[in-house]
Amino acid sequence: MKEEEAFGLVLRNIRMEQLLSQEQLAHICELDRTYISLLERGKRNPTISTIFKLAFGLKIMPSKLINETEKLIGFNSKLF
Amino acid sequence: MKEEEAFGLVLRNIRMEQLLSQEQLAHICELDRTYISLLERGKRNPTISTIFKLAFGLKIMPSKLINETEKLIGFNSKLF
Repeated sequence: MKEEEAFGLVLRNIRMEQLLSQEQLAHICELDRTYISLLERGKRNPTISTIFKLAFGLKIMPSKLINETEKLIGFNSKLF
Repeated sequence: MKEEEAFGLVLRNIRMEQLLSQEQLAHICELDRTYISLLERGKRNPTISTIFKLAFGLKIMPSKLINETEKLIGFNSKLF
């Protein structure tokens, strides 16, 4: 699984846990609803600025988003 | 400070701690030496794929890079 695909799954999961619609999250983050949809489907590779905006919108630390993503990919096993 | 500027400082700091040159890191990550230089100076906004490549090259978790970046920015204070 590619990083952006794992990130998309994590993003969707946390957004839905918080009972936020894509529209609501997009509004808080000042991003486009369509762009949130593309990110969640792994069709866009977010920059660090976008990751920080999304974290702000979800009221979580950006490192939490990345930690969940690396767990999903099994990144740890690539290092050791 | 912008996210990419903080990230650049974190990247340079960890690379130098490991006594790696930009050339060496670029080679391990399969990135361009010039691109590493631009990232370190905050002149490029890395994507999640690039962040994972750099973490692989530095043999650290991607979330570690982001955690150091958010600490430098003081992101925590934006949430609470």
